[in-house]
Amino acid sequence: MNKVAITGIGVTDFTREDIPIENILLKSTKEIFDNTKNLQQSDIDAVLVSSNSNTKYLSAILSEISGISPKISHSVESLCNSGTNAIVSGYSYIASGMADVVLVTGGERYDSPGQVLEWDKTRGEFKHPVFWASLFTHGYKQKYSIREEDLAIVAARNHKNAQENPHAYSKKAYSVNDVINSKKLSEDLRVLDCSRPCTGASSVLLSSEKFAKKFTDTPIWISGIGQKTISASFIKNPSFSKMFSTIEASNIAYNQAKITPEDVQVAEIHDAFTVCEPLALEALGFTKEGEGTKMSKTLYETDNRMINPRGGILGTGHPLGATGIAQTVEIVQQLQKTAGKRQLGEPKIGLVQNMSAAATSSTVLVLKS
Amino acid sequence: MNKVAITGIGVTDFTREDIPIENILLKSTKEIFDNTKNLQQSDIDAVLVSSNSNTKYLSAILSEISGISPKISHSVESLCNSGTNAIVSGYSYIASGMADVVLVTGGERYDSPGQVLEWDKTRGEFKHPVFWASLFTHGYKQKYSIREEDLAIVAARNHKNAQENPHAYSKKAYSVNDVINSKKLSEDLRVLDCSRPCTGASSVLLSSEKFAKKFTDTPIWISGIGQKTISASFIKNPSFSKMFSTIEASNIAYNQAKITPEDVQVAEIHDAFTVCEPLALEALGFTKEGEGTKMSKTLYETDNRMINPRGGILGTGHPLGATGIAQTVEIVQQLQKTAGKRQLGEPKIGLVQNMSAAATSSTVLVLKS
Repeated sequence: MNKVAITGIGVTDFTREDIPIENILLKSTKEIFDNTKNLQQSDIDAVLVSSNSNTKYLSAILSEISGISPKISHSVESLCNSGTNAIVSGYSYIASGMADVVLVTGGERYDSPGQVLEWDKTRGEFKHPVFWASLFTHGYKQKYSIREEDLAIVAARNHKNAQENPHAYSKKAYSVNDVINSKKLSEDLRVLDCSRPCTGASSVLLSSEKFAKKFTDTPIWISGIGQKTISASFIKNPSFSKMFSTIEASNIAYNQAKITPEDVQVAEIHDAFTVCEPLALEALGFTKEGEGTKMSKTLYETDNRMINPRGGILGTGHPLGATGIAQTVEIVQQLQKTAGKRQLGEPKIGLVQNMSAAATSSTVLVLKS
Repeated sequence: MNKVAITGIGVTDFTREDIPIENILLKSTKEIFDNTKNLQQSDIDAVLVSSNSNTKYLSAILSEISGISPKISHSVESLCNSGTNAIVSGYSYIASGMADVVLVTGGERYDSPGQVLEWDKTRGEFKHPVFWASLFTHGYKQKYSIREEDLAIVAARNHKNAQENPHAYSKKAYSVNDVINSKKLSEDLRVLDCSRPCTGASSVLLSSEKFAKKFTDTPIWISGIGQKTISASFIKNPSFSKMFSTIEASNIAYNQAKITPEDVQVAEIHDAFTVCEPLALEALGFTKEGEGTKMSKTLYETDNRMINPRGGILGTGHPLGATGIAQTVEIVQQLQKTAGKRQLGEPKIGLVQNMSAAATSSTVLVLKS
């Protein structure tokens, strides 16, 4: 299997801008061209677009407006982890020898149709993700005697981190009190427990080993990939206090990368709602079961930003098709030591955890400098 | 690069049935399980769905209702060649060693949103494919002095072939006179020059060499893959009498398969409109430029069914996300000598040509027994 590196990145501001999906995708693609040395349109063998937009033929559209005539070109969709699914597809094209250079761009509008899962009848009238997040929050709080304040720390911490991220949707820090006094949406969920839909795009350029050094002096290697789909309807989850798909995906990724959870120095994890952060910290093996909120609290109190340095999804915003790619971009910047005010020393191993629809599916990527 | 075989097939009837997209996808998936020896849900590493449907998370939904919990799972969309794009993605997962067994299922409803390309402003008020087909027909007729009757033979021939295909949407043969007397849609196009949207699904099971013999005694090998995206808006085509993306894609595929056009013994080509058949025959190198209709005429008069034995898209119908996979299923059956009344002797090399949006992009697959 050929090695695959990330050799270019692009990310737009995350906003409420009302512009066509193809223009959003073009913005981060243009940034890749502006920021990547020696990159020509003709270098690109494949263009993959990640989005929940209903616009068809988006990869051909992005190719045309970017001046690219790729061999391989299509859109990839898997709700909130569309972005990492597209990265994994691009990886496989290079790993198999079918391509040397792949552009992966994900984007979404704030009004994406991916925010409601019409299909899942087990959701009853509650098709919005707030419903499943509420059930998970209830289940997790009950099982481990977690208080509202413990989860509020997750929101406060991620909004705080986001203040150092110029692209983040959140422009304001919130205290734990702000979170627990914010508008109640359900018995277990307040508005500041939730990430916010927004408009934004992110891109990565993937290259084979042969081409990596052409585009950057500091290629970042995709060293582990784990994916798992348990189901589509969240009610098939055997419990509401555990992320089963993330547990399976991370084991596969750690195995391939030949690392243990302790080796991870920086991670972007899928905190679409406050409860997701402790669940993911536990599923990834960063802490014990039931102790996720303790870890979040320690990170908050010691201002340790190794988890979600860009502000996670709560702080940065959640343009579905862009999210997994934006998470990856942050880890690449951390490993390249170009994260500016967010830089965490000199990490060499980073991780991305990106999931969909109540963790019915997950992708975990391990990146190494 | 690991070798990749097609080791299972499924195809539904193509109809106007008004059923949910997930039920259509399930039908051909179920057929694969019914028809493939030793296949268990737990064998499947990846589920890829090809569709233009606006329903999100379709691959997870199909996985759940099929009892599969795959590692890799997402939807692939590229308008009319979504199906072969999904096959190529599945191929790359196996070729790279990331998966051993991949289920690829494509489906569409008759009212698919993929039938209109809203984005392309160069289409003016004419967003329906009939418009571009009309321009191509006009350009091709003018350049090579082709008559309406010459193109009508293409429709008559494909509808005739479809009569031996139990899954085909066309239940009736049409004479050349029927075609040229059918309702006029534009200066250059009549209703029988056009393929028809319908409801249907198709599936292929892809396997690594290691697993191929577990599922079938007659694996069919994907020996050449060529893809090319020129643009998204058809007006960028340098001429309306040539399929540029198919020329490039077929050269790549022939090269990888180490064959020439003369070696191809059976082919399914993308005759979404009558003019597409001669254009594709020329682009694939099966005949000289400007002589595509002569070849179609000879095939018709000698009842040689080596091109579109199942009735092509004109005869079988065009459920967009299923089409490329249904074309592939036909070639697999021909190479396995299981095509029943449609069987063409004992072909060993077959080809699929699947394109999108006025041939702005094409996929060409070479299959060998």
